[in-house]
Formats: sequence, structure tokens, C-alpha cells
Amino acid sequence: MSTARTAESSPSAARGVPRTPGGLGLVRTSQAVLFTPEAPLELERGAVLAPVEVAYETYGTLDATASNVVVVPHALTGDAHAAGHHGDPARRGWWDVLIGPGRPIDTDRWFVVASNLLGGCRGTTGPSSPDPATGRPYGLDFPALTIGDLVRVQRALLRHLGVRRIHAVVGGSLGGMQALEWVLQAPEDVDRVVVIAASARLSAQSIALSTAAREAILRDPDFQGGRYHGTGRRPDAGLAAARMIGHVTYVSEEALERKFDRARRAPGGALPASGAEWLAPDFEVEHYLHHQAATFLDRFDPLSYLYLTRVMDHFDPFRDPARLAAAAAAGAHATVVSFDSDWRFGPPHSDRIARELAAAGVGVVRRSLTSPWGHDSFLLALPDYLAVVAAALEP
Amino acid sequence: MSTARTAESSPSAARGVPRTPGGLGLVRTSQAVLFTPEAPLELERGAVLAPVEVAYETYGTLDATASNVVVVPHALTGDAHAAGHHGDPARRGWWDVLIGPGRPIDTDRWFVVASNLLGGCRGTTGPSSPDPATGRPYGLDFPALTIGDLVRVQRALLRHLGVRRIHAVVGGSLGGMQALEWVLQAPEDVDRVVVIAASARLSAQSIALSTAAREAILRDPDFQGGRYHGTGRRPDAGLAAARMIGHVTYVSEEALERKFDRARRAPGGALPASGAEWLAPDFEVEHYLHHQAATFLDRFDPLSYLYLTRVMDHFDPFRDPARLAAAAAAGAHATVVSFDSDWRFGPPHSDRIARELAAAGVGVVRRSLTSPWGHDSFLLALPDYLAVVAAALEP
Repeated sequence: MSTARTAESSPSAARGVPRTPGGLGLVRTSQAVLFTPEAPLELERGAVLAPVEVAYETYGTLDATASNVVVVPHALTGDAHAAGHHGDPARRGWWDVLIGPGRPIDTDRWFVVASNLLGGCRGTTGPSSPDPATGRPYGLDFPALTIGDLVRVQRALLRHLGVRRIHAVVGGSLGGMQALEWVLQAPEDVDRVVVIAASARLSAQSIALSTAAREAILRDPDFQGGRYHGTGRRPDAGLAAARMIGHVTYVSEEALERKFDRARRAPGGALPASGAEWLAPDFEVEHYLHHQAATFLDRFDPLSYLYLTRVMDHFDPFRDPARLAAAAAAGAHATVVSFDSDWRFGPPHSDRIARELAAAGVGVVRRSLTSPWGHDSFLLALPDYLAVVAAALEP
Repeated sequence: MSTARTAESSPSAARGVPRTPGGLGLVRTSQAVLFTPEAPLELERGAVLAPVEVAYETYGTLDATASNVVVVPHALTGDAHAAGHHGDPARRGWWDVLIGPGRPIDTDRWFVVASNLLGGCRGTTGPSSPDPATGRPYGLDFPALTIGDLVRVQRALLRHLGVRRIHAVVGGSLGGMQALEWVLQAPEDVDRVVVIAASARLSAQSIALSTAAREAILRDPDFQGGRYHGTGRRPDAGLAAARMIGHVTYVSEEALERKFDRARRAPGGALPASGAEWLAPDFEVEHYLHHQAATFLDRFDPLSYLYLTRVMDHFDPFRDPARLAAAAAAGAHATVVSFDSDWRFGPPHSDRIARELAAAGVGVVRRSLTSPWGHDSFLLALPDYLAVVAAALEP
């Protein structure tokens, strides 16, 4: 029987909650070639793709029965480096607050698999990878993707690692959308999913915001129709604007207010008479966005941004009742988590996911958490949130 | 004595409420040179500017005592053409629903003055006007502006037209910010102001959204440091992205949902396998944003977009208690109007304006209206709204 419950957490969202001491140490990224011209990846829309190489990391130890596996698909701008560090212990993976010894996704107990998504730019085949037909990067010749395709590649990785059964898939935002797709695509392989700050149906507003961000890239003269590689010019203007737009929507109005209010850097609050100086960054929130854009340009690719936002627009996982019924029949279980200040994929999106799953007979726990930090809450060490994830993994 | 009241309207916001039949007929835009090298405009930040030419329109007849004047400053992307038409009766001014015979700003009774703002690109001197020092467009050599400067130029226009006393200043968004500045800068000249969907203190989120939009322009390779004129290249990519970002924030999530939901144009909902086709506009909301961007590029200038958004970031009209006290002493009156679904300058912004004015002793009426259409509600023929504006003009 399904159970759909709603639990309100107590407000406790102090930023900078101390992390559990320790955490994983040095970790490394591995590579695997999962699809070859002889055995290519067949995409949901009909195209085929080969080779497909995947960057991944694992944490903890696979047990003798290969049954202690937790998969953590990443969000839009993540990568395979989810936890630990690559040499500098101060620079840690994007979900280090959740993953490690004694942490909610406890690596003393679980074998955690994180991989860079298909279409990405952090070691997995994507639109800036070389097209074997031409030797040049694919660009916009890279085929259309679905979230189903992203999951299909992760399933191939797990087969490659000798895993047959998955204890849990846990993801936030686009990662949560993949967790949901996992339980519908392969309910016989996965015992439970934790779907955090996700949506199964982007609103017109969300599509519009993503369109504005993509158009900043697509219209940038340096985009050159996607053939910017090797020209010495990349659509950094567009990618920076896209990141700034996105970032503003990932944090709550309250978070920006608390962190920056209207603080400025100009000494004594002086205002210049020169137009050029006056238009330069001055408010602290502007410096913050500039910093966000600069670090993003160093690690992300404009084409991957286009592809991975577009898969979200079209995600519509409940259109096939047979998949829902199969998930229920397999005894799948889902924990669906939202944060009240998230205005991209907030509580109504999680409500709908929980409702559809429960109506089909999938076991559902719905957790509605309080946090002032908006959509990005899923990346933060908020005690109630950490407790919810830890509890969701209990067999 | 001040009175601060809050009135909730009944929900009645049906779009396409029929306009009052008639409306103004053919109108024309006039030009006036208001400041010359001999008598330049002295800007608040210390720079001087000359010549300053202003485009304006007037509707109705100035009465014998020049005392029936209503000034309507425009919002970010407006111009001097507030009402009537320029030859095609179907293409009417931006506030035609409010201005005309028998309309809330009744041109049978009031002499209405609309002008393009300083820094604009629709006939008034702005950063793309020729710099007399070089003969080339100013670009970023155009000086920093304040909302005080915008009002100072409008006051010069009214002196030029022989007007001494103003019955009312009525504006929405940036226009409302100017109305508020009017009553603080020249309380002896203006009897009442109607401040609609405005802010006297942009939030960090609003500044961040404007920064993202401006950076799309500033970083566009075709911006060329503001010297794009005559190069055959203009930062249209950046301006289009800026418009799309802005536009999404001017409409409510509900409005986008009602108008577009997830409707698509692809026949039968087909999804292409080609990345390039898949990234092209498909959802109706995308086509809508593309249309908004295209029409905007035809009529707006990237530099004006930069300057007129930046003046809003720095607007802080209550920092000088002496100006508030002078407004109260002059017997000024303000009606402050908000729309509940406006997430740029919503009810809390109007509450603050009303509170500060009332605390200083300015007479205030606060009207909090219900509308599903977001910030752009101030441009629409919503019956409760039209009634509030009409009532606010009663002596």
C-alpha cells in the first residue's frame, strides 16, 4: 500500500551548520567507455551515439552481494566529483555535506556512485566531444537527449561496475528528476529513490527563464552556430548571463536580502558621475554574481548548458501509466522532498510528484522542509534535511 | 493629517476588459530643446549636459490658469507616445487604456503631458545622442543619471509649456518612482501623485536580475565598449536576452501558466532527434518571448537600457528627511497602488512608500489591488485599477 504523508520540519536553517568532522579524503575520477560503434547507445528519440565515455567516482566499498549501492545523479552544473577532494582538502565535492563516513549517505555503509551526465562537459560524452564522423566537436549535431537517456547511461555504468541491484538513487533538482526517472525506467533494479527539489512538469515560467538563458548563449555572436571550438572565441558573454539568470533563481529573495541587502563597495557610498564607472559592479550582490559567472566560465561549456537545460523542459515522466504501474508492482518506494523558499521547483512540484506516485500505488513519503535558502537548499548542510535523507535510506 | 488606508479590491482582473469606446485620435510627438551650452542641465552627480532635447506629447487643453495639468512619466521601455495613435488607430500609445476622453485620466478635463525620459532613445537626449565634444554618440561617456535628473528635465519641459502648477503626476514602475521623486523634489509645484507598482528601495534580488540583464549587454562582443554606432554591429544578442529576462519578471507565474501552460507548436507534439531543431523555439511561451525580443530590438537602444535600469538600482528617495518634511508642509497627497501578483515591485514595496510618506505627515491613500497579471498590471484595463486612478485625480 502506498502511504503519502506530509511532514513539516521545524525551522532550523542556519547556514554554516558545522559539517561532520572528517569526510572523505582524496578521491579520483575514473573513466569508462560504455558504448562503442559496435554497440552504440540508442537514444529515446531514435538517434544512436558512440562512443560514449563516462567520468565517474565511487566512494565506500561494494559489498559481497553488490547490494549496498547508492547512486547520486547530479544537477545541471554538477559533475562526477560529488564528495571528498582532489588534492586540496578545502575544495570538496558538490555534495560533500551529504556523502562521507557517518554522513547521511554513509560511505562506511553504502557504495556511492556519482557520474557526469550524458551531454555534460566534465568527462562524459557531450556536445563538445569529438564527433567520430568528422573528428570535430559535435556542436549542435549532437542529438537531442531525454532524462531517460541520462539514466540509461548510468544504468550501463552500474552494469560495468558489476552492480545488479541498487539500494537507492538520491538526487536534487535535475538529479531528483533523474532519481524519479530511475524508479519508472528500472523499478526492478532500484529499491528506493529520494527526489529532492525536483519537478515532473516545468512551469511556463521555468521554461521561459531557461529560454532567456539559452538565448543569451545561442544569440551570442561568439557562439558561431555551435562551432566555436578552436576559433579562440567562445560565447562566454552568453554563458555568463545564463549563469547569472539561473543563479538568481536558485536562491530565494530572502537569502539575497540576508546576505547582501543593498550593501555597496564604493568607499563612503560615493556615486560616480561617469556613466562607465556607475555601470560597473558596485552593490555586493553584483560582485557576487560576477564571481559566480567567472568561476562557472572556468568549468562549464555553453553547449552542455543548452542541452542539459533543454532536457528538463521536456521531462514529462507521468505520461505513461504502464511505467507507474510497474513501479508500484515492483514495490518501489520514493521520498519526495521540497524546500518552502524554492521558487523554481518548490512544494507544489513535489506535491504533484508525490500525488502521482501514490495514486499509482508507489510507496511515498513526502517531506516539506523549511529553509530560507531557496532552490539551492538541497546543497546545504541543513540539519532537518540531512536527517530526512539519512532516514530515507534506511531499509 | 495623514491617512494611510488599505483597500482590497474584489478580484475582477479579466484580461481584455473592453476599453472605453473612442479614445484619442491622431496625436503627434513634439520636440523641445530645454538646455543649451549657455544654460546646461546640471546633473545631481555634478556633470553638466547640453544640449538636452526632449520628445513629448500633450493631450487635452491647458486651461486659462494653467492649472489642469497631469504629468505621466513613463516606465523603463516606454516613450512620449502615451495615448492616441500616430496614423494607425489600432496601434495606440502605451497608456491609452488610462488616458483619453472619459477615461480615468480624462482628456476632456486634464491637460496631459507625456515625455520621453532623459537617457532614453525615443527622441530625448540619451547615451546614443551625439556628444557635441566629439560629434559621435556619447556611449559610456554619457554621465551617470538619477531619477532626480529625470524629473528635473520634466520640470523644465513644463516651464517651457507655460505650466506652473501641476494637478497630478501619475506613473507606474519607473514612472511611479518618478512620481514619488516629483512630490519630494517639487512639493510646492505638485498637488498629488499616484505611485503605482513602484519601489523606493530595490531589493538585492531586483538588483541582481537587472545586473544579469545589463551584463548580457555589456559582455556582448558587439557592444564594443559602447561604441557600436556605425559599426554595423549592435549588441542585439545582449539586448534580446535582457528583454527576455525582464519580461519574465514583469508577468506573474500564474499569467504565464494561464496564457501558455506547456502548449507547444510542434505538430502532434513530435520531438526532433536533432539537437539543433530541439533547441529551437517550440513551447508557445518561447515563441512569445522571441516575439517580445524582436519587437523590442526594433524600438530600443542597448545603452538606454543600461542607463535607465541603473537609475532604479540607486533610487533611495527617503534618505533626506528634509524633503519629506517639505512635502508634508506643502500639503502634498499621494495614492500608492500595488498589485498582489507583482513580484518585482509588489505590495511590500508600496507598503514601505506609504508608511514613510505617512510617517512624515504626507497625506496617503494606499490601494492594494488583486490582479493575476503581475507587474505589468499597471498597463492593463483592469476595472478596479481604472477606478482607483480616476478617484486619485479628484481634487
